[in-house]
Amino acid sequence: MADWQEISGGITAPRGYRSAGIRAGLKSSGLPDLALIVSDVEAIAAGVFTTSHVKAACVDYCRQSLQAKHSARAILCNAGQANAATGHQGWLDALESAMAVAQALNIPSESVLLASTGVIGQRIRMDALKAGIPKLVAELSETGSDAAAGAIVTTDLVTKSIALETMMGDRPVRIGGIAKGSGMIHPNMATMLAFVTCDAAVSPTLWQQMLSRAGDRSFNSITVDGDTSTNDSLIALANGQSRTPAITEMGAEAEKLEAMLTAVCQHLAKAIARDGEGATCLIEVQVTGAQDEQAARQIAKTIAGSSLVKSAIFGRDPNWGRIAAAAGRAGVPFEQENLKIKLGDILLMENGQPLPFDKKAASEYLKQAAQGAYLKEDTVLISVSIGTGSSSGKAWGCDLSYDYVKINAEYTT
Amino acid sequence: MADWQEISGGITAPRGYRSAGIRAGLKSSGLPDLALIVSDVEAIAAGVFTTSHVKAACVDYCRQSLQAKHSARAILCNAGQANAATGHQGWLDALESAMAVAQALNIPSESVLLASTGVIGQRIRMDALKAGIPKLVAELSETGSDAAAGAIVTTDLVTKSIALETMMGDRPVRIGGIAKGSGMIHPNMATMLAFVTCDAAVSPTLWQQMLSRAGDRSFNSITVDGDTSTNDSLIALANGQSRTPAITEMGAEAEKLEAMLTAVCQHLAKAIARDGEGATCLIEVQVTGAQDEQAARQIAKTIAGSSLVKSAIFGRDPNWGRIAAAAGRAGVPFEQENLKIKLGDILLMENGQPLPFDKKAASEYLKQAAQGAYLKEDTVLISVSIGTGSSSGKAWGCDLSYDYVKINAEYTT
Repeated sequence: MADWQEISGGITAPRGYRSAGIRAGLKSSGLPDLALIVSDVEAIAAGVFTTSHVKAACVDYCRQSLQAKHSARAILCNAGQANAATGHQGWLDALESAMAVAQALNIPSESVLLASTGVIGQRIRMDALKAGIPKLVAELSETGSDAAAGAIVTTDLVTKSIALETMMGDRPVRIGGIAKGSGMIHPNMATMLAFVTCDAAVSPTLWQQMLSRAGDRSFNSITVDGDTSTNDSLIALANGQSRTPAITEMGAEAEKLEAMLTAVCQHLAKAIARDGEGATCLIEVQVTGAQDEQAARQIAKTIAGSSLVKSAIFGRDPNWGRIAAAAGRAGVPFEQENLKIKLGDILLMENGQPLPFDKKAASEYLKQAAQGAYLKEDTVLISVSIGTGSSSGKAWGCDLSYDYVKINAEYTT
Repeated sequence: MADWQEISGGITAPRGYRSAGIRAGLKSSGLPDLALIVSDVEAIAAGVFTTSHVKAACVDYCRQSLQAKHSARAILCNAGQANAATGHQGWLDALESAMAVAQALNIPSESVLLASTGVIGQRIRMDALKAGIPKLVAELSETGSDAAAGAIVTTDLVTKSIALETMMGDRPVRIGGIAKGSGMIHPNMATMLAFVTCDAAVSPTLWQQMLSRAGDRSFNSITVDGDTSTNDSLIALANGQSRTPAITEMGAEAEKLEAMLTAVCQHLAKAIARDGEGATCLIEVQVTGAQDEQAARQIAKTIAGSSLVKSAIFGRDPNWGRIAAAAGRAGVPFEQENLKIKLGDILLMENGQPLPFDKKAASEYLKQAAQGAYLKEDTVLISVSIGTGSSSGKAWGCDLSYDYVKINAEYTT
C-alpha cells in the first residue's frame, strides 16, 4: 500500500516553493488569470506536452527550453488567451513574457517556463500581462498554492490541487500539484494544464522518465470528449530542498518517488475527468489480463471514451454490450472467448458470453456508485479482463449528459 | 464528371437479381426482419467486415466462406438478434441458417452468405427464422429491393437505397445497393450493413480490391459516434448478367466500374451518417494538400468525429478553433503555418492564423446549409487544406444534439 499521506499546501507544500495568482485583466470576466510558481533555487524540470500538430507558442517555447536545459526556476501561466494559432507574433509574445518574469525575479529568462490557456487564435493581452507581473511577484508566498490554482482555470467548476508527503530516511519528501481541466463552456478552451512541484533531488533524465510514465498513467489515461488541445502541458520541478540524497538511478527510493508522483498526477487527472462538462460521475475502467500495460490502457481508454458507454452510464443502464463492443474495437487483439466484464462486483459477461444478471441490481449499483456509495467518490467502476496476461491498465472518463451538448452547442456568436 | 445516371430499382436494378423482405417474427415489434438477396447465377463475391476483435458469428462465417470461395448466390440477413457474443451455439445457428436457405433455393450451402443485426448476446430466434425462409423464397422478386431494404433496418428512421447505371460499349451496366445504419435507440444495435449488387463481369481479385477501396472511401469515412460494431459488413456481388466483357485488370473500364461502385457506397454511407441518432444535418469534411489519401481521410474523419466540432455545428456556431484543434490531433504531421479552413465559401483561417470574418454570415451559412440551401442536401461543408501535397480525402458525420444523449441514455432496464 501507499506509504505516503495527503497533506495540505498544494504546490507550495514541498520546501522551497512560492506561488501566486492574481487578476491581471486578461480574462474579460475579471476573474484571476495570471499565476506564477517559483522555486527558491534552480530546479530540475521535466515536461510532457500536447502531441497535436497545431501547438501554442508556449508549448514550442517550453519544448525548446527543456531540450537545451533541464532546469528552471519559474513557471508563468496565463488564462484568457491561448496564444495558439497566433503565428510569429505569438512566439514574440512568449519570449517577451518570459523576459518580463526574468526581469522581475532577477533570474535568467532561460529559467522561466510558460503555459497559456484560453481562446485559440487570440494573442495574450501583453499590456495587462506585463503590468501584472510585478504585482504577481510581490504576491508570491509559501501559502500561495490556492491563489495559483484559482488563476489557471478557465471554465472548470472547481480548482484541482493535491499534496502528498512520504519519508525518505528520516526526512520528509513532498510532491504537490495543481491542474486545470477541459471545461469548454466557451469555445476553444479545452486545455489541460498541470504543474507539479517536488522537493526531492533527482537527476534530470530520471525525473523526465518518471514524469513521462506518470503522465501516461494519469493525464494520458483520461478522456472527456476525445479532443486534445493545442496547449496541453504537464510541467514538473524537483528542487532538492528536502535535503534528501540525490536519486540518480532506479531503485527503491526512485520507485517510491515515482509512485508518489504518479499518485499526484492520477489525483489531478481524475479531478479533471470528474469535472468534465455536464458530467454527473467519474467512470473508472480497469483492464486486466493484457500482454502489456499500454494495450490494457488502450482498451480501458476506448471504453471510457465511448459515447455509447458514456450515455448508458448517464442513463444508469447496465449495458455490457456497449462495453464489449468498445473493447473489441480498441485495436488490441484478444480472444473474445476470454472476455469478462464486471460492473462494480456484478459479473455481466464471462468467457465472451453474457451471463444472466439482475438488471435492477446492476442499475441500482450504477445509481449508488454515481452518488459515491462505494469508492468514497462518485465513481462507477467497470472491470474488464481480456485474457491471462499479467499486465493491467486503468483509464478514467465521465458520463455524457444533456448538459454536455448544451454547454458546447449553445455558445452562439 | 460522372457518366452514369441514377435509376430506380435498388439492388434488383442490375440484371439477374431478386430479393425479398418479410416479417418472420424475429423482432418483438413485429416489423419486417428477414431479407434475402439472390442472384440467378453464381456471382463473384467480395466483402469488407468489422475490424473489431469482438465479432458476430455471421462475420466469421462470411470471412471463412469468402476465403475459400470468391463467389455466392445468396445473402440472408436477419434483424432483431445480432448473434454476437453467442459462442459456439451462435456459430451452429449461422451454419443452420445457411443450410436452410440453401435447401429452399436448392443451391449449395457454400453459396449462401449471412448478416445479422440486432441485440448483442442474443441468439437468433431460429424457429422463426427457419419457418420464415420458405416464405421469403416464395416472395423473391425482381422488384423486391424495397422490401429487403425495409427488413434489414433496426432503428433507422429511413431506408437507404440507390441504383446507378452506365454504358459499357452499347450495353448498360448497373450497380445497386441497400444499407442500414447505426440507429441505437435500443442498446447494442450499432451495426452498419450494406449489400451491393452489380451485373458486370469482373475477376474476383479485382472486385475485392475495388470494394476494399470503395469501402475506405465511404463506409470507413463516416462517423456517427466513433463506435464500431461487432457485425459491420459490406458485401458485394457481381454476376456478369450485363453480358459485357469481363473486366480482369485495371484500365478505363475497371476505373469506370470502380468509380460507380464508390458512388453507390458513398451515397449509402452519407445516408447512414445523415440518419445518425439525433442528427439535424450531414457534415462533409474535405481535406486537401495532403501527402496521401489516407492521411487526408484521417484528418477529415477526426474533424467529422470531434464531439466539440459536432456540437458546435448543432449550435450553428462557426467555431474554426475546434476544427483546427481536431485537425492537429489526427496523428498526421503537417506544418501549422499551412493550415487553411473554410466553412462553405467563407475563409476562416489561412496560413495557420485566424482571419477576421463575418461571424453572423458564417453562422447564417451553417443555418442555411443545414437546411439544404447549398448542396441540394442538408449538408454543412468544411474544407481544410494542410499543405501543398496533391492528395485529398473526404469524411462525413453528423452533428451532436440533445436527442443523441436522450436516445442513448433513456433506455432503462
